[in-house]
Order: sequence, then C-alpha cells, then structure tokens
Amino acid sequence: MSNHSVNSVRLLGRLAELGAIGRDEDGKLVRLAASRADREGRDRLVSWIKAAGLDVVVDRIGNIFGVWATDGNADAAPLMLGSHLDTVINAGIYDGCFGVLSGLEVIETLKEAGFVPSRPIVVAAFTNEEGVRYAPDMMGSLVYAGGLDVNVALATIGTDGSRLGDELRKIGYAGDREPGFLKPHAYIELHIEQGPVLEKEGIPLGAVENLQGISWQRVTIEGDANHAGTTPISMRRDAGHAAARVITFLRARAKASNTPTVATVGCMAFEPNAINVIPSRTTFTVDLRDPDEERLKQEEAALADLLEALSAEEGVTISVERLARFEPVKFDERIVAAIEAAAKARALPFKRMTSGAGHDAQMIARIAPSAMIFVPSKGGISHNPKEFSTGNDLIAGANILLDVVRTLTEEE
Amino acid sequence: MSNHSVNSVRLLGRLAELGAIGRDEDGKLVRLAASRADREGRDRLVSWIKAAGLDVVVDRIGNIFGVWATDGNADAAPLMLGSHLDTVINAGIYDGCFGVLSGLEVIETLKEAGFVPSRPIVVAAFTNEEGVRYAPDMMGSLVYAGGLDVNVALATIGTDGSRLGDELRKIGYAGDREPGFLKPHAYIELHIEQGPVLEKEGIPLGAVENLQGISWQRVTIEGDANHAGTTPISMRRDAGHAAARVITFLRARAKASNTPTVATVGCMAFEPNAINVIPSRTTFTVDLRDPDEERLKQEEAALADLLEALSAEEGVTISVERLARFEPVKFDERIVAAIEAAAKARALPFKRMTSGAGHDAQMIARIAPSAMIFVPSKGGISHNPKEFSTGNDLIAGANILLDVVRTLTEEE
Repeated sequence: MSNHSVNSVRLLGRLAELGAIGRDEDGKLVRLAASRADREGRDRLVSWIKAAGLDVVVDRIGNIFGVWATDGNADAAPLMLGSHLDTVINAGIYDGCFGVLSGLEVIETLKEAGFVPSRPIVVAAFTNEEGVRYAPDMMGSLVYAGGLDVNVALATIGTDGSRLGDELRKIGYAGDREPGFLKPHAYIELHIEQGPVLEKEGIPLGAVENLQGISWQRVTIEGDANHAGTTPISMRRDAGHAAARVITFLRARAKASNTPTVATVGCMAFEPNAINVIPSRTTFTVDLRDPDEERLKQEEAALADLLEALSAEEGVTISVERLARFEPVKFDERIVAAIEAAAKARALPFKRMTSGAGHDAQMIARIAPSAMIFVPSKGGISHNPKEFSTGNDLIAGANILLDVVRTLTEEE
Repeated sequence: MSNHSVNSVRLLGRLAELGAIGRDEDGKLVRLAASRADREGRDRLVSWIKAAGLDVVVDRIGNIFGVWATDGNADAAPLMLGSHLDTVINAGIYDGCFGVLSGLEVIETLKEAGFVPSRPIVVAAFTNEEGVRYAPDMMGSLVYAGGLDVNVALATIGTDGSRLGDELRKIGYAGDREPGFLKPHAYIELHIEQGPVLEKEGIPLGAVENLQGISWQRVTIEGDANHAGTTPISMRRDAGHAAARVITFLRARAKASNTPTVATVGCMAFEPNAINVIPSRTTFTVDLRDPDEERLKQEEAALADLLEALSAEEGVTISVERLARFEPVKFDERIVAAIEAAAKARALPFKRMTSGAGHDAQMIARIAPSAMIFVPSKGGISHNPKEFSTGNDLIAGANILLDVVRTLTEEE
C-alpha cells in the first residue's frame, strides 16, 4: 500500500464541521472544557469514531480514545495519535482539532486500505488542554501521564465556580477507566505551528524535535520618586531606567547568541506613573524560553547577574518572584527521524524545529516516546479567529502522519 | 544699619502657625486655592500684614499685596517679594509660604530698624500657584503678568466643578484692583529648592539664574502582539523593546553631555500587558528640561531622530503628541549678582543654579527683572509632609533676601 493518502475532503470537511460547533451569538467559537459546547464537539467526534468502526473508551478525566485493535495485535502497546478539542474564547478552528481529526483520518485511511498494523492504533482527545476554564492547562494529558492525581483534577474549581468532575458528569464524559490505562508504545501529535517560522521560511512541514523550557519571573525594582525637573541625572534612582536596561539587555543577549533562546517582557507597570515624577517602582514580567535546560539556566543566571549589577549601578532595590518553571522536553529521536524520512519520500521540504508553545505531547512524553509534526500557521496567528492554515498544508501534514504511522506499525 | 538680621523666632513661628492651618481629619495639610482652608491661611497673612502697618490690597484674581510705601517713595516702582500660600494635597509647610512670610519678615525687619527705602517694598501672595484645583498652575502670577485674561481665569471650572470667581467671592478674596496694577521695579522670590542639589553638595544657598524650559511629549509605539514562545527574536515587532530603547537613549545622552539637561520617562503603559504576549503597543511620556532653549530644541530633535531610526530598526509605527512646551526663563543678572554679593558678604557658601520646577517668578519675569533664592530641601523632597528645610538654612536665606532688598532699595 505505497503512496496512499488521506481523504482530504473528509478531513477538511470534518474540521469545518467541528469548527461550526460552539459558536456564540456573535459567531465566536468558544468550546471551553466540559461545557455544553464541548459536549457537542465530543459527541460529534464519538459519532465519527464509531462510524469508522473503532471502540470508544473514556477515562475518568474525560479523555476520549478511539481504539483500532485487531485480533492479532490487541496485546501490543498501542501507537497513540492525538491532541484536544477544547478551545480558548474566540478561537480558531485548527488548534487541537486538527491533530485529533487527522489521527482519526489516518486510522480510517489505513483501515480502508486493508492495512494490518502490528499494534493497535489509537486516536486520543485530551480534556482541557487550554486551561481557560480550569487550571492547569494540558490537564487531561498531565493526569493521563500520572503527573496530577485524577481526584485532585476532578475537584478543580473553574473560573465560573463550577467543579470539573460535576461538569464532566453533566455532559456525559465522566468515564470509568483509570487514566493511563493504555500505555502507548509511542505518541505523535500533529498540530498547527501557532508561530511564524514555517510560513516565513516557506517550508510546509516541521519535524518537532523538542519543546521549549519556560521560565517566568516577576521583577520588582524600587528607586526614588523624585521631581523630574529638580533632580539631576546623577542623583536619580530611576526604577524605569533600570527596567528599560533589563529589556534591552535581554534583547541584545538573545540577538547576539546563535541559539533559539527567546526573552519577552510582556507586562510592565510604572509607579507613581506621573509625567513629572521619576518612577519609584516598576514591576514587570520576564518570559525566558529555551529548548535546552542548561542554556535556560544560563539565561536565568545572566538575568540574575544583570539585576545584581543594576542594584549597584542604579542604586535601586530589586526583588524577583518565580511564577512558573518548566524544563524543556526532548522528543524521541527515532520518531523525529521517521517524520523526516516520510517528508523526504514525499519530496516535501521540512525543517527540524522547536515548539514554542505547550502541547499535550509534552505530558505524554513522560510515559512514552513522543514527537510532533507542525504545519504552517498564516501570520503565526493562533487563539484568534484569524488562525488559518491552507488545505494543502493541512493535507500534506496529515499524509506525513499517515506515513509515519505506517512505518511505526509495520516495523515488527 | 549694617549686619541686621531677620527675627528668626517670628519667621519660623509664623511658618509653623500657617502650616497648622488647613489640616484635614487625618492631619494632612490641604489648602487648595480659594478653598475655606485657603481663606483661613489668607486671613492669617492679612492679619500679620496689617499688624506690621502695611496696606493690604487684593486684585481681581485674588492676589494679596502688603504694601510698604512712604511719603517719599510712593511714586517709585515697587520692589516686590513674594510667592504663594496655596498647597497641593498632603503638602509640606515650606513650599510657597516660606517666600511670602520671608518677604513680610524682611519688610518688618527693615521698618523696625528705621530703614528708609528708595521705593515701596511689597510682599505678594499669588493665587493658585499649584494648579491642583484649577488649571493652569501659576495662575495668579500669570494673570498679573498679563499672560491670561482675568475674566477667563475667573471663569475656570475646577476639578470639583466649582468656578474660581465664585469661590474667590465666597472666601472674600475677589478684590477690585486690576491685576498688574503695580508694575514692579524688580521681583525676588525666596523658595525651598524642592530638589536635592544644595543638600547633596553641602551648600546652604542657591542664586537662581534661570528656570528650565519644559518639553512634554506623549509617544505611542505600535508593533505586533505575537506569542512570546513561538516568535523568534528576529521576527518580532516589539513595542516594549522600542520603548526601552527610548529610555536608555535619553539617559545615555543626558549622562554623556556636560549640561543640566534632564530627561524623564514617568508614565508607561504596555498593551496587551500579558506575560506571554509580545507588547503590541506602548504609550509613554517624555519630560525634557533644559535652561537653554537651543539645547532643549536639540534634545527634542535628537529624540525625533531616534524615533525615526527605531521605526525602521524595530519595524514599529511611532506617533508623538506634544503635551506642553515652555521656553526657559533667564533671570536678571544684576539681581543674581546682588544675591551672590550678599552671600559673600555674610561668608555664606552659595552656587549659581537652575530652577527645575516652575515658580511665580517665571511669570513675573515677563514684566519685571526677577530672580530667585533657594535654600536646601532635605532629601530633595517636596509636595509631601516630609518636605523639610532646617531653621538655620531658612533664616540664612531670609537674611540674604534682607540684604538684597536693602541693596536694591538703597541704590537711588
């Protein structure tokens, strides 16, 4: 069965159909985890899984699995393909859904072609990846990988005061299987890039080899609120100037290095925030990301050194609060190589790349060899109705997934 | 009458007494222009002026004048000494009041000593210098100098919805003389520095030769709000980084120059102000001050050049709004020299300096040769209950004023 391809009309049609579910009165797409709209999306997925002749299994945290097992392979560890169906508020239609529907599409294509896999193939839709209604994000995959107790997760109170366990029961997706009941042989997640790299470089496919570590810190700098007219430059303790030096330092450092390090100061507040008063206090956030843990530590250390130097040079007092810290995830080299090989075989340009955003794959990587495939996002835009990937790019990505799945289930 | 000095007990006692008027239930000093508290302070001043045997005159904008004229000098243009009595919210007791009470103290001292001045000597308390309740600030002296029509000023609506003219009438200080009715021969204002220079340098007296020009601008920078994780540094249009470059540029420029130029970025806002989103828009203020108009123009031009370069280098769009612009004021060289000579004669260390804040003197300088005398402010603090100048410094300053007044009224 060489040179098979997925059914592009079916896949793109389902993406559009799912994207029409959960529209509010203004036409905005909102399918928050365990909401009525989420139920409607889940029900549609389940009907497609059943129509494809797969078994539907739901675990206690509401993760949905479509399992294609045969008499001959039921004892082998399954290959799992997946992502999530829940969305942010005013979302696009590709984030998450593309990975779930492509997983199902690949299984159907193989099944229809009479392919006999050496192990079960499973499509997974993980609960609450976005974390908008219930924190933390990537909750379903985290629970599945054993990183969060399912009872604790079910007791989570949402932004609307609801309890996740109650809401899952209400929508009919409080399953009875223990999360982690299927230990995957491997996990592959196909996703839109949600960043600008592939589009800008004109490359249709990313073989995602790792996922950035994240370091979030909040920095507070305290100086003196003196008069902007009467205080000579040499006598100032200007918290605003010290903050600006952090921003320019981080940028210069990231630019000078030949690494994928990114540094962002996204939040900033000046006090007293008056035109003629030297800022006495600034508070800002620093978001550092790097796919290499050692380098991420170096970046954190460089920031700490700068802050210490600033204290002395600017006469300010600086305190730092750690808000979040995740180590980078390295994906499985064998799967990444299989993705590259599949792209080469289809003469599809590709690049190895890093995921800058978090995904369910980073959680499942705790329990199984994992990797991701990216397709280009127009303008790098995501979490927005303008989120868009071309049909050609989506189908090309799904066909690579198809080829990799075949490779990984033919091997034994 | 060589080596006379002011009555230090009387001057410091009156400063404290006036500083007790206008305390709110929390003990905060609040004597906003034309308020009931302002009336009480004015009444106290008027009682002291009358007790000293001077004539009290009030003009239509509420400026109070205590006039010491003799049969022999009534036709000559008067020497005017003054400042203001109104305060900000939660003020200190020295700002303004020190200049008014010192003017009165100097007149009383000369009168008691039997001095016969060649021209009338007048103490003035100008209405609404602070501009907290009614804009603009320095209103009474501006109207007096002909820079604002008195009817327009009286029609000003305050932050509390009140009309200044009505409030002046209510408190009994809507006078009948036209502002400007006395054209001063010269004007001298003794004031606390409201800045840190004299204290830091250990110098008790400032001969103020000029007053900074002010340029206020609001800058808006627009970039792109992309994902902090997925957007490589090279693809960013980061409005926050561009804003930081403005701050560090202004500081480096002011520091490298050997001029009194000061530049302050006091207000700053980031949008969307999210930890993981590159700032798409920053809005901030730039406060530039310089005592030299040509240099102030150069600083404005350098900022404009930087913003143009940033547009190209950072890929951002920049717009600038002018908020305020005042040319520098050069005080009268002869009076400044007289202040220096008086300090030398008393062996009091002094320095020529620039006023970084606005004062009534800058308005009266439009119609008469003017200058200012500064005494040290502890920590440079003003507009705050911590505002403080030592009794020694205050009295030393008042004695210099006494000597200069004698010089300027002996000369003919």
